[in-house]
Amino acid sequence: MTEQTEKNGMSRRRLLGTAGAAGAAGLVVGGAGGAFATQAARDRPAPLTGVGTRTVPFHGKHQAGIADPAQACGHLLALDLAPGADRKAAAALLRRWSATAADLAAGDVPKGDDTGVALDAGPSSLTVTFGFGRTFFDRTGLADKRPAALEPLPSFTADALDAKRGDGDLWVQIGADDPLVAFHALRLIQKQAGDTARTRWQMNGFNRTPGATGKPMTGRNLMGQIDGTNNPKPSDSDFDARIFVPEDSGDWMAGGSYAVVRRIRMLLDSWDHLSLERQEKVIGRRKSDGAPLSGGTETTPVDLNKIGEDGSLAIAGDAHIRVAAPESNRGAAMLRRAFSYHDGFLDDGSPDAGLLFVAWQADPRRGFVPVQRKLDRGDGLSRFLRHESSALFAVPGGCAQDEYVGQRLLEG
Amino acid sequence: MTEQTEKNGMSRRRLLGTAGAAGAAGLVVGGAGGAFATQAARDRPAPLTGVGTRTVPFHGKHQAGIADPAQACGHLLALDLAPGADRKAAAALLRRWSATAADLAAGDVPKGDDTGVALDAGPSSLTVTFGFGRTFFDRTGLADKRPAALEPLPSFTADALDAKRGDGDLWVQIGADDPLVAFHALRLIQKQAGDTARTRWQMNGFNRTPGATGKPMTGRNLMGQIDGTNNPKPSDSDFDARIFVPEDSGDWMAGGSYAVVRRIRMLLDSWDHLSLERQEKVIGRRKSDGAPLSGGTETTPVDLNKIGEDGSLAIAGDAHIRVAAPESNRGAAMLRRAFSYHDGFLDDGSPDAGLLFVAWQADPRRGFVPVQRKLDRGDGLSRFLRHESSALFAVPGGCAQDEYVGQRLLEG
Repeated sequence: MTEQTEKNGMSRRRLLGTAGAAGAAGLVVGGAGGAFATQAARDRPAPLTGVGTRTVPFHGKHQAGIADPAQACGHLLALDLAPGADRKAAAALLRRWSATAADLAAGDVPKGDDTGVALDAGPSSLTVTFGFGRTFFDRTGLADKRPAALEPLPSFTADALDAKRGDGDLWVQIGADDPLVAFHALRLIQKQAGDTARTRWQMNGFNRTPGATGKPMTGRNLMGQIDGTNNPKPSDSDFDARIFVPEDSGDWMAGGSYAVVRRIRMLLDSWDHLSLERQEKVIGRRKSDGAPLSGGTETTPVDLNKIGEDGSLAIAGDAHIRVAAPESNRGAAMLRRAFSYHDGFLDDGSPDAGLLFVAWQADPRRGFVPVQRKLDRGDGLSRFLRHESSALFAVPGGCAQDEYVGQRLLEG
Repeated sequence: MTEQTEKNGMSRRRLLGTAGAAGAAGLVVGGAGGAFATQAARDRPAPLTGVGTRTVPFHGKHQAGIADPAQACGHLLALDLAPGADRKAAAALLRRWSATAADLAAGDVPKGDDTGVALDAGPSSLTVTFGFGRTFFDRTGLADKRPAALEPLPSFTADALDAKRGDGDLWVQIGADDPLVAFHALRLIQKQAGDTARTRWQMNGFNRTPGATGKPMTGRNLMGQIDGTNNPKPSDSDFDARIFVPEDSGDWMAGGSYAVVRRIRMLLDSWDHLSLERQEKVIGRRKSDGAPLSGGTETTPVDLNKIGEDGSLAIAGDAHIRVAAPESNRGAAMLRRAFSYHDGFLDDGSPDAGLLFVAWQADPRRGFVPVQRKLDRGDGLSRFLRHESSALFAVPGGCAQDEYVGQRLLEG
C-alpha cells in the first residue's frame, strides 16, 4: 500500500481522507511525507497494530482533546503575543497551527518539518487543542468579542498562585499516548509561534499507559485515588449542554467550551501520613476500587443520605465527593480531564507533584466557580492541596477542513 | 484464580513463585496484598493482557535494569547519607529497598504500603537498580573496598557541570512502562530512605510507549536520530565481558557493572537549524531509518573507509558514529541505555530537553572515559550538546531471594 502510494505520487494526506481509518493506519509508519518521503519509500514499514495506530480526527464541530479520553502524555502551553503582533498575525499563527495539528493527528509529516522526532510512530491518539485567554482580546482589538464567561476567576482561600505560571493570551493543550509524539507536536507548535508569540509557561503531565491495567478504567491520581468517576459522559443526554456552548448560539464560540486550568500540588507527605481509613473518609470513596462509602461499586450512584452502622453519615459532611457533587451545587458539573505531573522535589524534600487539573464546561460561572467556592469552604481534601497556578481559556468550536480554529473570531 | 487465592489464604508472593509468569500475570491486577487485600477480594479484576503484565525478575546474578530494554518511563535518584548514618544504617536501607523492589517487580504490594498509586496496574516491566557513589565508601568506613574503577571521571572541555545535580552516595534507577507504576516505586524508595538518606538530585525521563511503532525498534532521541544501533547486544559473545565485572572476580562487585550518568542537554534550536543533509553528516547515519551513510540498512556494519560519489569519505572525519566507533577507540564500548528528558524551557525560550545518558560497562576506564575523550576532541555533534551533570556509580551484582543488593559489600 505504501509503495503504491509512492508510485502514484498521491499525497498521504489525500489517501488518509479516502482510505478510511483502517487503511490509514497502515500508512502512518515511516512518515512518508516532507523531507523524509524519498527515504521512507526505500523500506516498507511494519504495520502498526498497537496504541500508535489510534487516531482522533482534528476536524469536527468540537475541537479534539475535550470529550476524548485523556492520553498518557500531556503538554500544556501558554503563550503571549509578542509586542506588535496584531490580529492578522494571530490569525496567520492559528492558521499555521491548525494545519500542523491536522497533519499530525492524521499521522502525516507537516510541511517543512524535518525534526524527525516522531518518525516510526503512529499518531498515538494525538490531539492539539487551542484556546484564547482574556488578555488576547484587548491585544488584538477584539475586546468587544470577549465573552462574558471569560471574566476573571474569583480568588479562593486555598490559592497560592504564581502569576507567571498562570493565564496567557493563547493556550495549547497537547495529548498523545506516546511521549515522543507529544514532544514532537509541542516542539512544532512552539517553533511555529515564531515572532508572533512566545512561551509564557509550559507544563508536562501524564496518565496511565494504555494496557497497563486489565481493562480501560477510570484513572488514578498521585494520591492513589480513582479520580473522575462522576465525570459527565459523552453518552449522557445533557453532556453537550453542560460542556459545549450551543452550536446555534450564533456566537463565534458556538460549539466551543471553556477550560479552567489549575496546577494543583498535592501535599503527598501529609496525605500518606493519614491511615487508609481516614483517607477514604476524606474522599468518600474506597481507595481500592473507588466505590462510594455508601455502598456498591465504583459506578453505583452515591447515596449522600446513607447512615452507616455507627449512626453517622456514610459519606462524611466534609467528604470531597459530597461537597463536589452536583446535588450540592445546584447541578453544577464540569468535565475533568486532568494529567498528573511530577517535576522532582522541592527544597524541603517533598515531591513537586500533583494534578494538572483541566476542567471543561459550557460556562465556568455554572461549572468550576460554584463548585470550587463550595470546595474552598467545606472540602476535607483542601488541606492536602495547593492551587499553584490558574488560568481560564475560551476554546472555540472545531473547524472544517478548509478552516482554522478561531477563524470565526479572527475574521468574523 | 484470584478468589481461590483469597480463600486458601495463600500469599500472592508465594503463588507468584509457584504459578510461574503466565499464572502470575492474572493475579497482578487489584494489588491483593497489604492494606488492600480484603477490598480487592470483593471484585474479580480483569485479566491483564498488555504492557502491564510484563515482568522483569528482580533477583538474579545481575541487577535488573541493565541488560533489559529501557522502559517508557524512568526516574533517576541520587541520595546522600544523612549525618550519623553509618554502614549498619546503610545496610538496613539496602535491605528494605531490595525487599520493596522485589515485591514491586513481581506486581505485589510491598508491606506497609497503602499509597495505592499503582493499584490496578501490573508491574509494567518495572526495574529498580541500586548503586554506590565514590563518596559512599568513606562515609561508611569502607574506603578500603572502594573499587579503583570508581576514580573520578576526568573533566571534558564540553562539560558545564552542575555539582548539585551530579554524584551522590547512593543511586537508584527506576524504569517502568507505566508512569504511575514508576512514580509509585520512586515514592516508596524515597519514603523508605527515612532518616538514613536524603534526596540529592532526581531526574525524570522517557522513551517510546510500547506499541507506538509498528515493531520493536531502536529508539529515537529528541534530535530525531535513531540512537543505540551499535549498542552491545546481550546475544554478543563478548557482551558479559564488556558490561559486567567477572562473576569469578572474587570481589564484592562480581557480576556488577559501572553506570556513567550524564544529563546531556541538546541545543535543539541550533540543531533544527541545520539542513537534514547536514544533520545526517554530523551523525553519519540517515535520519529516516538510521542506515549508515556508507550504505545498507540500520544494522549494516558501518564502513568507515567507504568513499562517496564525490570522492570524500561517506562517513565524515568528525561524524559522531566514526569518532564513537569501537574501531576508533581500541575496542572500547559501553551499553547506552538512556532516557530522554524534557523539563520545560530555559529563560532564553529554548527547550530544557535532551538525554539522561546512562552508560554501562565493566570498567569505565575502558568504556566511557576513552570514548568521551575522543568525542570531546573530534565529534561534530559536540557543539550541539551540553553535559550538565555527571556521576559514576558502582552497581553491584544481583542478589538471591534471601539476600539484598550490596550485602557482599556491606557485610563482607
